[in-house]
Amino acid sequence: MGRAAAPRRLADIGEWDQIADVVIVGFGGAGACAALEARSDGVDVLLLERMSGGGGTTALSTGQIYLGGGTGVQRACGFEDSTEDMFRYLMASCGPGVDEGKIRAFCDGCLEHFDWLVGHGMPFKESYYGEGSYTPTDDCLSYSGSELCHAYRDLARPAPRGHTVQQDGIEAGGQLMRSLIAAVEKSGARIQTDTLVESLVVDDERRVVGVVAKVDQREQRIGARGGIVLCAGGFINNKAMVERYAPLLRKCKFRAASDGDDGRGIRMGMGVGGAAIRMDVGCIVLPFTVPKKLVKGIFVNRQGQRFIDESLYQTVVGEAALLHENGEVFLIVDNEIFERPFPPTDLVAVEDTIEDLEKSMKLPDGSLQHTVAYYNEHAARAEDPLFHKQADCLQPLVKPPFAALDYTTDAALYTVFTMGGLHTTPSGQVLSADGEPIAGLYAAGRTTSGIAAQGYSSGLSIADATFFGRRAGASAARAQPR
Amino acid sequence: MGRAAAPRRLADIGEWDQIADVVIVGFGGAGACAALEARSDGVDVLLLERMSGGGGTTALSTGQIYLGGGTGVQRACGFEDSTEDMFRYLMASCGPGVDEGKIRAFCDGCLEHFDWLVGHGMPFKESYYGEGSYTPTDDCLSYSGSELCHAYRDLARPAPRGHTVQQDGIEAGGQLMRSLIAAVEKSGARIQTDTLVESLVVDDERRVVGVVAKVDQREQRIGARGGIVLCAGGFINNKAMVERYAPLLRKCKFRAASDGDDGRGIRMGMGVGGAAIRMDVGCIVLPFTVPKKLVKGIFVNRQGQRFIDESLYQTVVGEAALLHENGEVFLIVDNEIFERPFPPTDLVAVEDTIEDLEKSMKLPDGSLQHTVAYYNEHAARAEDPLFHKQADCLQPLVKPPFAALDYTTDAALYTVFTMGGLHTTPSGQVLSADGEPIAGLYAAGRTTSGIAAQGYSSGLSIADATFFGRRAGASAARAQPR
Repeated sequence: MGRAAAPRRLADIGEWDQIADVVIVGFGGAGACAALEARSDGVDVLLLERMSGGGGTTALSTGQIYLGGGTGVQRACGFEDSTEDMFRYLMASCGPGVDEGKIRAFCDGCLEHFDWLVGHGMPFKESYYGEGSYTPTDDCLSYSGSELCHAYRDLARPAPRGHTVQQDGIEAGGQLMRSLIAAVEKSGARIQTDTLVESLVVDDERRVVGVVAKVDQREQRIGARGGIVLCAGGFINNKAMVERYAPLLRKCKFRAASDGDDGRGIRMGMGVGGAAIRMDVGCIVLPFTVPKKLVKGIFVNRQGQRFIDESLYQTVVGEAALLHENGEVFLIVDNEIFERPFPPTDLVAVEDTIEDLEKSMKLPDGSLQHTVAYYNEHAARAEDPLFHKQADCLQPLVKPPFAALDYTTDAALYTVFTMGGLHTTPSGQVLSADGEPIAGLYAAGRTTSGIAAQGYSSGLSIADATFFGRRAGASAARAQPR
Repeated sequence: MGRAAAPRRLADIGEWDQIADVVIVGFGGAGACAALEARSDGVDVLLLERMSGGGGTTALSTGQIYLGGGTGVQRACGFEDSTEDMFRYLMASCGPGVDEGKIRAFCDGCLEHFDWLVGHGMPFKESYYGEGSYTPTDDCLSYSGSELCHAYRDLARPAPRGHTVQQDGIEAGGQLMRSLIAAVEKSGARIQTDTLVESLVVDDERRVVGVVAKVDQREQRIGARGGIVLCAGGFINNKAMVERYAPLLRKCKFRAASDGDDGRGIRMGMGVGGAAIRMDVGCIVLPFTVPKKLVKGIFVNRQGQRFIDESLYQTVVGEAALLHENGEVFLIVDNEIFERPFPPTDLVAVEDTIEDLEKSMKLPDGSLQHTVAYYNEHAARAEDPLFHKQADCLQPLVKPPFAALDYTTDAALYTVFTMGGLHTTPSGQVLSADGEPIAGLYAAGRTTSGIAAQGYSSGLSIADATFFGRRAGASAARAQPR
């Protein structure tokens, strides 16, 4: 993965090959927004990207941004929302260990941020998609979290807050980044691709004052008058780091990240004394909700027991399945609700009775029979005394044949990226283990621990990247020049 | 908690007030053993302790050390054990994310280490205690992990490996430290107490070359020719750090650590680019096994379901209860097995039938009734198809009245300390985020992530402290002097 942690000394650097007010490392969603905001302050911005063009992990994403409080799209689609409802939902769902300062800042600034994104060319259709979190159509708004679930619906008035950029297909991240890249190009920020930043440069007072990059096999020494902003993604593609910090995440089949997510930004920050926090946390998606009626099935573990409200968001189900059940879970369905899931997974067994299904699955005698009987008895009355699953997802499983879908980590497409990273203030300053700013160093996006310290609703990562990317860029632009 | 992370520059230090070959920060179990081993190499050792005497968290402990492979005590008590059985057990139980290098080194060196401890005055009685992990008597050997449980017993031949230093009462850590302190005093190591190390000192090549300490309100600058060894404990008594890295641990009532466990050693290491890993992990003890027959009860969660083999070690049960069940669990007992637990906890309800108990506990209708009926049916045949609890802990719960003991975090004495810390090699060198040594810096004990990356058997922390403390001390002693 290459070294990144050890900084270089300014005294050993000699002359800078080039210099800018703000140097941004990584041209994904966070880096683009940092550049735009820094440029709006009129400073000289240099954006460095290791690949041959901007995009990063944001470009590979579904292009969904978690936004609320009453955005134009929410209002046009007839959904009421408020800053405080969003705040309460995020505070309750993004923990344990939420960063209240970040959630407060994000909620308070969310409407302005939506308008800013629109103003920078982000296309949002004024339409609602009710079939799931990810929109295969060009629609915008969808529920992308657990807002409607028992655990949250009485704490905060539910509203759909997933805002997907307008583009057909579930990979709208490309369109999102095309918009941002066009805006950055127009902004006058200097963009330098094929530039792998290899280390930070610190002066004798431990202030971060530049970077050393590899360009065409040669070192380039780049100074920053104001600050460096690390927007270099997470670390899910660095096996050694995942093993060291979050070993269970390695069981997930699909890493939702660009190759560049090798933890380089985090390691550079750590090398100058930045604290990396919540490095155990991942966003773990267990994709079982397409087609939507599969949510009427029930998840069971190796004991044939249910363990969760299946109507909770697929990241919450994924976290419980992987971390609490060691990734050994099965979705039980009957013929009424069965359809081939997308993404596909295996059928463990199909049988005419639950008793036979239990046997085929080698579950303890009687365990699944009890679980299904208990569930059915209450589901018939639209009740779920164990987990309070949403009423419209409750339906007795009575029509044979019955099947068990394999949602173990060996079979299913558990999708993962890392959520831990550098500890930053809401304004983007990187903090030390004592909680004090590292002079000259800023960060945003998945290089940091963000809005969702743990529990994840879709769209929060691009919200982090774009919202706090802007703030980090602005802070670096306004930093006292050396 | 005071600052510790930012290092001082050698160039700003001027003259050292004193200098030694090896400077050790913290005089608990790890620091003592580091000092002894460094002294055995004939170098000049200075041991710094913030309190007025040695002891640290080790002195507050049960004085139990996890040792095996066929120690003198194991053999005298008639237990067979082998290095490979211990290795297999630790590899299987100390994960996920085990550090195989540390476990290999520890197992290979364990018999020598036992003899070394005896040689340094550690009293071990050649006796076995069969009533539990902690010995209220002056006995030595006990099962202090999950060796006999279904999950491990076929992987590795079980043997008791908890070796408690001879002293009446469950707090034998005092005796353990008295032995070590006497040995250190005899060794010729210089001991300086009432000395709070406030920061590391680095030279222009980022080598750690000394510390700055506060003594009598004045700064003392202390140089190290060979290396610095951080043996300053964990961070459970630093609220901000626990909130930042391991927020669920804050729910535990009792922090098993000295006041000095404020993460200072870890923060100093991070400040010079050392990587702190597995910072989310805690040793979480749910003390429900005294008197021993309470293990014949069954734990249920808010759904009235069992969730674990109750005969697993109390740290494994504690981890599942806190991390998977949010600390909301109850122990169901009947009149046959009930006794007042030690430490005490509340009774949620006592009823003549399980149905009434279920109602009093406000569990979902029928849930506890099914759980107990299913358990009883199989326990009568010495079977536990759900979790494979040890046969001698299986007994139908049939004699009224029935009770639920409150093992929620609000009521019970969940006992906790942190397991994450600096990433070190088996020889004690502190590693950067790239996995490269930080020159001049060593660490051991709970300042590091150790033998148990996660799953914990009692005695592993003092094993870590003493075994890897020795190695860190030896490495620092043999480091090329500057």
